[in-house]
Amino acid sequence: MLNDRNRSPADSVVHATAPRRRPGAVRAPFAGLRHATGWGQQGAHPLARSEENARLFDYERRIKSAFDAIVPTLKRVSALQHEEQFELRAQDLARERLGFELPEQILADAWVEQLDMRRLFAWCVFETYRRFCDEFFTTDPLKSDDEAAFDQFLQECGFHLLDVSPCSDGRLAHVVRYVLRLPYRMVRRKSYAGALFDIENSLEKWTETELLRFREGRPNTADAPTRYLKAAVYHYSSRDPAHEGCAAHGSDAAAAARAGLERLLAFQQAVQNTHCCGASIDLLLIGLDTDTDAIRVHIANGAGEIDLHGMIEARDLYTQTQRLTAQQARARIETRVKEAAPDVPEGTQRLIARLLENNLSQIEYVRRYHSEHYRDIGHAERFIGAGKGFEEVQLRNLTYFAYLDTVEEAADDLDVGVKIFSRLNVAHGLPVPVVIRYDYQGHVPGARERAAEHCQRVAQAMSARYADLIGRGLIHMLMLVRDCAAGGSIEVLGCSVTEQEMWESH
Amino acid sequence: MLNDRNRSPADSVVHATAPRRRPGAVRAPFAGLRHATGWGQQGAHPLARSEENARLFDYERRIKSAFDAIVPTLKRVSALQHEEQFELRAQDLARERLGFELPEQILADAWVEQLDMRRLFAWCVFETYRRFCDEFFTTDPLKSDDEAAFDQFLQECGFHLLDVSPCSDGRLAHVVRYVLRLPYRMVRRKSYAGALFDIENSLEKWTETELLRFREGRPNTADAPTRYLKAAVYHYSSRDPAHEGCAAHGSDAAAAARAGLERLLAFQQAVQNTHCCGASIDLLLIGLDTDTDAIRVHIANGAGEIDLHGMIEARDLYTQTQRLTAQQARARIETRVKEAAPDVPEGTQRLIARLLENNLSQIEYVRRYHSEHYRDIGHAERFIGAGKGFEEVQLRNLTYFAYLDTVEEAADDLDVGVKIFSRLNVAHGLPVPVVIRYDYQGHVPGARERAAEHCQRVAQAMSARYADLIGRGLIHMLMLVRDCAAGGSIEVLGCSVTEQEMWESH
Repeated sequence: MLNDRNRSPADSVVHATAPRRRPGAVRAPFAGLRHATGWGQQGAHPLARSEENARLFDYERRIKSAFDAIVPTLKRVSALQHEEQFELRAQDLARERLGFELPEQILADAWVEQLDMRRLFAWCVFETYRRFCDEFFTTDPLKSDDEAAFDQFLQECGFHLLDVSPCSDGRLAHVVRYVLRLPYRMVRRKSYAGALFDIENSLEKWTETELLRFREGRPNTADAPTRYLKAAVYHYSSRDPAHEGCAAHGSDAAAAARAGLERLLAFQQAVQNTHCCGASIDLLLIGLDTDTDAIRVHIANGAGEIDLHGMIEARDLYTQTQRLTAQQARARIETRVKEAAPDVPEGTQRLIARLLENNLSQIEYVRRYHSEHYRDIGHAERFIGAGKGFEEVQLRNLTYFAYLDTVEEAADDLDVGVKIFSRLNVAHGLPVPVVIRYDYQGHVPGARERAAEHCQRVAQAMSARYADLIGRGLIHMLMLVRDCAAGGSIEVLGCSVTEQEMWESH
Repeated sequence: MLNDRNRSPADSVVHATAPRRRPGAVRAPFAGLRHATGWGQQGAHPLARSEENARLFDYERRIKSAFDAIVPTLKRVSALQHEEQFELRAQDLARERLGFELPEQILADAWVEQLDMRRLFAWCVFETYRRFCDEFFTTDPLKSDDEAAFDQFLQECGFHLLDVSPCSDGRLAHVVRYVLRLPYRMVRRKSYAGALFDIENSLEKWTETELLRFREGRPNTADAPTRYLKAAVYHYSSRDPAHEGCAAHGSDAAAAARAGLERLLAFQQAVQNTHCCGASIDLLLIGLDTDTDAIRVHIANGAGEIDLHGMIEARDLYTQTQRLTAQQARARIETRVKEAAPDVPEGTQRLIARLLENNLSQIEYVRRYHSEHYRDIGHAERFIGAGKGFEEVQLRNLTYFAYLDTVEEAADDLDVGVKIFSRLNVAHGLPVPVVIRYDYQGHVPGARERAAEHCQRVAQAMSARYADLIGRGLIHMLMLVRDCAAGGSIEVLGCSVTEQEMWESH
């Protein structure tokens, strides 16, 4: 395990001081921003949940600051490397700024030539990630108060599952818990480049979901007249539409929306054609402005057809309802949805109205804590997450997702990720940190061993594909698995930063 | 398409004369053997279906002879290459011996240096395969007369699906239709090296199967007290046990049986742990002697536990019942099963007795047509089949299966295949023919395009992994897809033998 020796119970929550901005990448958008406790209620939107916003911001700031403290701390460690009692002073600094100690062996080897900053940087990112995971799975910091209530609400709206496929861009990783303010455990999330989700994989999930209803009555019995709701979330940039939109669609918002709709319709048709007896699903297409986190919901008509031009902009609703009472504001939203989608079942209208209302809190969140728009409107991910799992990543611009079974199939997505990090990290001499992770169902015999083999295989394929960068120490990999059925934390299998002996000593 | 121009309706059935045996590989085991029509009924086992045997042998001989005619024909073509009117004479020869013409351009280029025999050989294998597929999907030569009756029988025995995972060794490819004499369309077959089937994939199939019962009442409704039956088929060699057994288990029959049983139990436990309400499956472990096609069935006790030492050998039953009447023989088999497995449900006993009885026909088949054991007791596959599909391959030692999504995951299996063909082909200067194939569900939108991309991706990954052999013209690849929902024939996408122009001209 990474640095387990140095952990005390008090360490289990990641904490660190906010670092200064590093040139070349907007990675520390929290420096100089007001703290969660520092702002008043004046001007708050009547439907914005200020307390929840404060809690969510505190978490976001804390986690990202922990990652962003690494570079300034290592700069200071670097400056010390040829001084007296270097190792002692470096460890003091690391403990104070990062909350953990650095691996002794890397420090001890510094006198020979110089400190291996690439390895040290990667090690710190991985250790910070590990501590972030431990906190997440131990204390559940993003728990929603209304999980059961949401399940109930969803069924009242006519749905037994909400399955969301956002783009795998790191700027959408918070879409469930932050942007839409939904309980992350109650919503299926699978991210794909350009929101172009895998139809065969979605069909499998549909099959699984329906069988659960038939066999176990979960979440409701199969005779309940509810439907499977599939949502795709594409994205665009209001500040710099030509450059900071979705890379998979050449920053063309209309093309991204069209492609998302086509994929949704293809999945619907696949369900209808594969299964008889009126099997079908409902569809939802959402656009996200990644600069402000405002959503637009594309509305279907009574026949279930979605018109790409007919949409409700949460940003407009925010302005229109800003000076009303909460009750008036809510009524206005409902009226707007009813007008835009008069033929749509009442339950669907209720769900859309709820998503729009929820999003007002997030619009408020960005305005309050990040000014009119995020400072990091472009990519500023801290690491690449490759594999399956990553339930703990519910934060914006933390992780570039490469949801994959094999490097062979996901080579294009991985190449995009490595390219993004070439700009963010490699251009500054820092390596690309890649977390390879496979979750498994612990109750399935041999599943853990297969997940571990899977990690190894993907790491090997990465090594073959990016041999040059790896050879120069510019890609480092952390391999881990997690028993998602048991709900425990991650299990670290290995890491390219450390030799085996060193690995075991931490 | 491969050589479509030269096809006439009469060509659609593969026909060719039996070739002479080629040194170095026992690939033409039909030369000199009696033909299907040439033998009498004396000494036939009372339960052996002689007519079916004759039909099956006729098919096996015809298909394999078509493949085995390639080398002797090309030898003669080679001898002609510097003579007058070479192209004309070569085409006459090919038409007469192989039933199709050779690609003009390869012949036309012969005068420059010499005939490119590697390309020509690969082209002929692929064309023969294509014609074999066309026949299979057009005329259904292995159709069983009793498909509906088998479905009924299986349900009466207490099962709604028989899912068989044999070893991917080519010597087991005929296990469903020949060895067990079952209708191949009614049995799920997925082959894996060492019969070590994928548990997650099997769980998906279980889920699909149960949902079909709940939603559509197929093959029966979910309240019928039937079970999902999973069978694993491992193998061994009675003639050369130390060398010609299962490579994945080091030719150790006991180890192969143990591994098969462990995998079965793991799948059973996975179903039980993943699904509640008493979900489970029944298990069947079968061993196959690949020299004689005699099976052994391992018997479970009433608690469902399989004892690896308690088994019924079909070979013994064959001898014990050889001189009885059909009725007596059938009764003897039933008694033997009842004695060996007294606590097992009566339906399971009936199914096992049926499988044993069916296998007697196959034992007879080998004795009649191939003498006491096959002449090709070792590997003698004609091509590697990589991908998913290959429903048409129901013949022994025709295809080395590499059931795969990606080269990355199946690298070990592919390496074994390439190694086998290094001995069979490369050692004689001939290339390894690899058919890359993905079946798709035509009613799922975009499925064909995804299958085609899949083929391309796997071909690229093969090219990277076996760059040296490919560079020397010692691996050739044929890429194809098939709409398995429509039940049509294969669609050829491309082939490494031919440039695009040439490809289109055929």
